[in-house]
Amino acid sequence: MTALRATTPQELAETMRGLGARARAAAQVLKQASSERKNAALRAAAQALRDETKAILAANARDVEAVRARGATEAFVDRLALNAARIAGTARGLDDVAAFPDPVGHVMAEWTRPNGLVIQRVRVPLGVIGVIYESRPNVTADAGGLCLKAGNAAILRGGSESFHTARAIGACLTKGLREADLPEDAIQLVPTTDREAVGHMLKMIDFIDIIVPRGGKSLIARVQQESRIPVIAHLDGNCHVYVDGKADLAMARKVVMNAKMRRVSVCGAAETLLVDRAAAPTHLTPVVKDLLDAGCEVRGDEATRAVDARVKPASEDDYYTEFLEPIIAAKIVDGVGAAIAHVEKYGSHHTDAIVTEDKAAAERFLNEVDSAIVLVNASTQFADGAEFGMGAEIGISTGRLHARGPVGAEQLTSMKYVVRGTGQVRP
Amino acid sequence: MTALRATTPQELAETMRGLGARARAAAQVLKQASSERKNAALRAAAQALRDETKAILAANARDVEAVRARGATEAFVDRLALNAARIAGTARGLDDVAAFPDPVGHVMAEWTRPNGLVIQRVRVPLGVIGVIYESRPNVTADAGGLCLKAGNAAILRGGSESFHTARAIGACLTKGLREADLPEDAIQLVPTTDREAVGHMLKMIDFIDIIVPRGGKSLIARVQQESRIPVIAHLDGNCHVYVDGKADLAMARKVVMNAKMRRVSVCGAAETLLVDRAAAPTHLTPVVKDLLDAGCEVRGDEATRAVDARVKPASEDDYYTEFLEPIIAAKIVDGVGAAIAHVEKYGSHHTDAIVTEDKAAAERFLNEVDSAIVLVNASTQFADGAEFGMGAEIGISTGRLHARGPVGAEQLTSMKYVVRGTGQVRP
Repeated sequence: MTALRATTPQELAETMRGLGARARAAAQVLKQASSERKNAALRAAAQALRDETKAILAANARDVEAVRARGATEAFVDRLALNAARIAGTARGLDDVAAFPDPVGHVMAEWTRPNGLVIQRVRVPLGVIGVIYESRPNVTADAGGLCLKAGNAAILRGGSESFHTARAIGACLTKGLREADLPEDAIQLVPTTDREAVGHMLKMIDFIDIIVPRGGKSLIARVQQESRIPVIAHLDGNCHVYVDGKADLAMARKVVMNAKMRRVSVCGAAETLLVDRAAAPTHLTPVVKDLLDAGCEVRGDEATRAVDARVKPASEDDYYTEFLEPIIAAKIVDGVGAAIAHVEKYGSHHTDAIVTEDKAAAERFLNEVDSAIVLVNASTQFADGAEFGMGAEIGISTGRLHARGPVGAEQLTSMKYVVRGTGQVRP
Repeated sequence: MTALRATTPQELAETMRGLGARARAAAQVLKQASSERKNAALRAAAQALRDETKAILAANARDVEAVRARGATEAFVDRLALNAARIAGTARGLDDVAAFPDPVGHVMAEWTRPNGLVIQRVRVPLGVIGVIYESRPNVTADAGGLCLKAGNAAILRGGSESFHTARAIGACLTKGLREADLPEDAIQLVPTTDREAVGHMLKMIDFIDIIVPRGGKSLIARVQQESRIPVIAHLDGNCHVYVDGKADLAMARKVVMNAKMRRVSVCGAAETLLVDRAAAPTHLTPVVKDLLDAGCEVRGDEATRAVDARVKPASEDDYYTEFLEPIIAAKIVDGVGAAIAHVEKYGSHHTDAIVTEDKAAAERFLNEVDSAIVLVNASTQFADGAEFGMGAEIGISTGRLHARGPVGAEQLTSMKYVVRGTGQVRP
């Protein structure tokens, strides 16, 4: 089947049901697969990526050529285009996932009841995971590998612009599964670029247990709107750094600069700077000048604009915006309470930080800011599964159910209760 | 507003949105409420139930009279009718929830990264919980109390037949909240019996974070079909007891009898008995005769029917059925592998048990049976939050996401990551 083959709606429905049924069957095998076998598949897939670098680059060139011909932006092409180093990095990612402990079978808790029953809460695989993502070729390997690690079957639907690249990478994953004697259907790619395929995935409640969308706002909004299957969604990261009146100035400068400018396009990048009015006379000017000197556009309220002529006026909308660019909104607030109120009103409950030497202010911020990740005296750019020591991640969940924060292999599991008795009956 | 007041669809929509907005506002207060204050509200509500017993009984009499006039079955009336002892039991339930540790703020895990960042995973409330249940008056107090304990606002929609009873109990919960100086909107009852109200609840994605249906199959099926909000569902409990070839006979008799007959109407009651062919000559007859002598109807395959003339033939459907009556399906299987295959094919992934002295068979059953609760040498009737030491429960989840098994206060929470640094920035 190729990307371009026209199918009738009926053919598509059958194709999708077939994918689903095969994924469900593979999941039954995978949930009992040993760590050794899963890790062998991951390592063999990594090796296949290295061995097939030439073929992957050829497939990628085909995709890049097609989007260039349709006039894609250079930023888009840059996300799509692979080179040998990127492929090596993706292979290394699979090796890293293999090296990480297996979440399946982990005893999360164990206790003994007065009647002698020993109860364990044990991690088990979730089942079948549907991943819907944009044209980022590495996600095929990253997501497929994480799902496999956690004993789940995966149905992957990448952006149509990366169709040939994803197929070439998918072939390496299949090879890894085959070499480890695991079902090849454990990681399947949707074999068509038909946009209706996503609609089918979102309704396959018998075959898919959870949907993980990874991409921009419009993709995630569509998935959340249409899905009949629970969604682990990563919404936008409108992250804040609040410089408290009791902040150490050198630390504040370092943390703000890193939070905004280390990489501006990641979801943990800071988008709004809040400065305590008490710290404004001492801290505001150096922090803002650092940003401006580093090439960051600062959009501020009146007090911030007074600091430097380069500061532009901020609109109300700016405080709601995830720029993902070298732009930051800035505002003076009256202490930690006002900072918390601002974050709660404008933020996206992703990742927010306070810089302060005041323990009480720090604890209040950590407690009252209702975000997946809250930090004191550290950069928001630490919002990352690997930085948390959780291994690779499929995204940062801003939802409150099942998984919140970094979603790694552990978050792609369910659990069960295992009870061992000696003949106990209930009175 | 009363049960009987006709409302236009527009009025209903406004009423429901008002409920939702007030619940969201209350949740903002509740999530910061201290354990002391929440527990004070629970205890004051318990006291109010005791103080208002007469008023509750009067309201209940009104409901009972109405359903009797419409010709309800005695079983239905029995579930609906209260007496002073039942009300005292419900009050005691609220006191028990108050006495249980607060899940909110609990540090689930803490670790330090090589760069010195200290990361904690901390429990936080979920937000607003919508509970939809049938005409079981105690659920109003049980569900409202558990949601409150976990720092959540609750919107409760009970069966229309218990409308007046639920209102009387709801008034006691409100009194408890008021006395503890917590927002009265923390626990709200849908103020109408209009069935469309449920449809509204299931679509209020801005105001309700999770829906918990508690009731029969048709209610849960409707909720799962219609809901735009994630659902923690308790599906049917088609529970199995498998008597292995290496089972101790006395233990097998005791466990099977308890699993089936202690209470036949609970979700953890056994519905199918599987006996290893190797144990049939010794174990089948006594186990089956025990059940028959206790008044249980046994529907068996040929081998089981040979044991006793009272055994009736089992249909294929019987093995899929949650009887919730003194009826059990029975079958001879060829060892633990066949038992597991039967449970996986016919079961509902709720609670299943093996009786055996063979450690390898036990471990295989515990590992391969994919149910929320798996037991060895213990009755399936232990499927209960309190029996697990988890305190009161709102149900047993057979879903795989967020919560699986008993759903108590802890399962009605989310979490966040709290990160403490000393100025770390990401390289």
